[in-house]
Amino acid sequence: MDVEAVIREVLQRIRPSEDERAFIKGLMRELEGIAKETSESLGLDVKPYFVGSLAKDTYLAGDHDIDLFLAFPLETPLEELRERGLELGKAIAEKLDSHELAYAEHPYVRATYKEVKVDLVPCYDVKSWKDVRTAVDRSILHTKWVIENLEGRNNDVRLLKRFLKGINAYGSEIYVRGFSGYLAEILVIKYGSFLEVLRNVDFMLRQKIIDPGNWLKREHEIAMRTIRREADSDRPLIVLDPVDPRRNVAANLSWEKYGRFYFRAREFLDGPSAKFFFPEKPRAGNYLGELRRKGTHLLVLVFEKPDLIDDLLLPQLERSARGFEKALSRKGFAVLGWDAGYSGGKAFIMLELDRIERERVTIKPGPEFFTERGLDFYRKNARVWLRGKRLYAEKIIKEGIVDVISELLEKNQVALGKGIRENIKRADVLLDYVPKELEESAYLFLSREKWNLK
Amino acid sequence: MDVEAVIREVLQRIRPSEDERAFIKGLMRELEGIAKETSESLGLDVKPYFVGSLAKDTYLAGDHDIDLFLAFPLETPLEELRERGLELGKAIAEKLDSHELAYAEHPYVRATYKEVKVDLVPCYDVKSWKDVRTAVDRSILHTKWVIENLEGRNNDVRLLKRFLKGINAYGSEIYVRGFSGYLAEILVIKYGSFLEVLRNVDFMLRQKIIDPGNWLKREHEIAMRTIRREADSDRPLIVLDPVDPRRNVAANLSWEKYGRFYFRAREFLDGPSAKFFFPEKPRAGNYLGELRRKGTHLLVLVFEKPDLIDDLLLPQLERSARGFEKALSRKGFAVLGWDAGYSGGKAFIMLELDRIERERVTIKPGPEFFTERGLDFYRKNARVWLRGKRLYAEKIIKEGIVDVISELLEKNQVALGKGIRENIKRADVLLDYVPKELEESAYLFLSREKWNLK
Repeated sequence: MDVEAVIREVLQRIRPSEDERAFIKGLMRELEGIAKETSESLGLDVKPYFVGSLAKDTYLAGDHDIDLFLAFPLETPLEELRERGLELGKAIAEKLDSHELAYAEHPYVRATYKEVKVDLVPCYDVKSWKDVRTAVDRSILHTKWVIENLEGRNNDVRLLKRFLKGINAYGSEIYVRGFSGYLAEILVIKYGSFLEVLRNVDFMLRQKIIDPGNWLKREHEIAMRTIRREADSDRPLIVLDPVDPRRNVAANLSWEKYGRFYFRAREFLDGPSAKFFFPEKPRAGNYLGELRRKGTHLLVLVFEKPDLIDDLLLPQLERSARGFEKALSRKGFAVLGWDAGYSGGKAFIMLELDRIERERVTIKPGPEFFTERGLDFYRKNARVWLRGKRLYAEKIIKEGIVDVISELLEKNQVALGKGIRENIKRADVLLDYVPKELEESAYLFLSREKWNLK
Repeated sequence: MDVEAVIREVLQRIRPSEDERAFIKGLMRELEGIAKETSESLGLDVKPYFVGSLAKDTYLAGDHDIDLFLAFPLETPLEELRERGLELGKAIAEKLDSHELAYAEHPYVRATYKEVKVDLVPCYDVKSWKDVRTAVDRSILHTKWVIENLEGRNNDVRLLKRFLKGINAYGSEIYVRGFSGYLAEILVIKYGSFLEVLRNVDFMLRQKIIDPGNWLKREHEIAMRTIRREADSDRPLIVLDPVDPRRNVAANLSWEKYGRFYFRAREFLDGPSAKFFFPEKPRAGNYLGELRRKGTHLLVLVFEKPDLIDDLLLPQLERSARGFEKALSRKGFAVLGWDAGYSGGKAFIMLELDRIERERVTIKPGPEFFTERGLDFYRKNARVWLRGKRLYAEKIIKEGIVDVISELLEKNQVALGKGIRENIKRADVLLDYVPKELEESAYLFLSREKWNLK
């Protein structure tokens, strides 16, 4: 199939229909009216802004979360913005179908209206990056910039976003570290089209710095400071935010996710197929078969999922998994890989190990023999010998991995995520076995299907 | 038992009887006569000297190898000394019971006479260290110095030598690295008695430098050079040879052997017993029991013993064992200990391992993904993923230790002793099993009875 045909086919699935567009436009108009009216009735000078992919018309069919930003005048004190912003959000939400509180840098209201999720987020009405005071303020500027510069290439953005989703490289959340929607938009604007972005995948890595806002001319010093900072952090790309020279839009993009894009882009250009956009779900195989094939072992800690949002929980799970990796390697077990996540109310950490038993007797190095500590070591140990001037003794150690894990946890010798430490300490430790609901996760982990580039 | 009683008991066993002394004296007189006569009959100007423990009267009962040195005038060219020395040795030996050729720095004749071994060694008739030309020349000076300084403490030397033998720290050969007889004599002369040597075991280590010849006064610069050189080599003791300021009598003493002496001396003083001098042979236990107790594994390479003297063979065996230790640890096997030696015509290297199987699949790190080599790695490997900007792939590896050993030897990836390389390559590799004749060695090794201080 040629690339144009593939793109046509994919666009048919991801471009919103006229009906959908009309419905969304109506919804937005309606919400804008409610927001203005409510704001006025509360005596507030607040402007409603739509931001995000709906406002930019770069959303994918069926994927319409509405971001309605409630912009307060710059002179509003932060405390007041928080309080009155929440009050206003609640008042708006009362006129919609349902709502709850959600938390980011500050709390906001998440409502539902006609089965569409509507986030009502208070912010400052910033005109320039110099006004930015809270993390969300920039969104208004982003939306404006994209609308001004996209010049009808909305479907190219849709294609790139869907492609990134298909290859599992979309989203800038800390536990994804992929491409944000805004980054995708900038790349399309910079290179001209979806295909040109793909064709430039190697070039953009080598060029490294993308500066669509022309900051290197306009604010040379600030831009250079950003570039140096991001270069020191060894980012794959430095994309100076066209609305703020202090920010790298690709700051959260990991080498792993960039690498996926790098290989998939080449492969797509070599052999275009809709499968890149809509991959088949990997066939779940048998995790026990994988263990046999590899001759390795699987250790799983299963524990109560703490009541935390993904943004907090997943990094803590990762941190804890890394903690086990380190602690176990100090104890003589090699961790070939790890994974962490949750399924229903249960969180898990999986570790792939080279073995699950250690030698029972190990060698303990002691001090130099002619010291006080040497004499002490000699007295205290049963079998003692010399190598050079150092004493050595046999030491009996715990042999099974489950005992080793218990001991490590008891002695607090594993670096664990703060919010999940206590749950992990009460975890069930499973060896070469997982409960039914984790079988697929275990397979995807052990086979590395979850991460494999190929 | 008090220390005096122990010493009396031990002396009764190690002091030569009057009969033995008379026999040895007679033998020496007889040999001296034969040597002089033969030398004259060959027209040589050679003086016979007795050196070693018989000459110094510090030999142990029943332990009487005779060293008869044939001293040529200093002006004799080395080549002539070698030829005529050997000729003279042979001529003397003809008058004895039997003889054969032996090799040190130069060849000499080893004869037997009345069931006593007699070494006939050509040397120079040196009067001072400045005359020393061959490695053996110094012996005449050593003998003379000890006789002049021992002042009747011959039995103290006997006790110290027997003590060192009992604790397995006697002999300065390269594969023993313990105390030489001459060093034992110097220590007795320096500290006054057997017991005083033991009492000063910690002091002599801290003082470090022993200078019975007073070289630091008489030849300060040369003595300091020797001290600096030996201090740089981190020797446990620096004993300036009273007959040669350029030499550390304790140069071959290892920290391990000094350490044995250190602990045993303290223990003897705390609880005197004849067992230190005459230890019970360690009870040979069951090596398979040791393996079970420790949860470890034994790998043995058994091969044809090459036709080399101990001084050459044993260091090469050690070097090869260390080579296996390094090579195997690179391959993921931990070597907890090794031993090497021979028994009859078979040489062996034993390695104690934490395990004998590795995971079948291992992780192969590749290059950075965006390089030519990265693309190549990606093409060539089956399962590939990223960690940071580096590619990784699965790699299938040999799983059993025997296969790993074969592969290492095939690819020349083990540093082996030169003279035994080919034999090792043809070795039988045994796993958790040794033939009958190596069972004791295996037990002494695995239990560490061979080296244990306790």
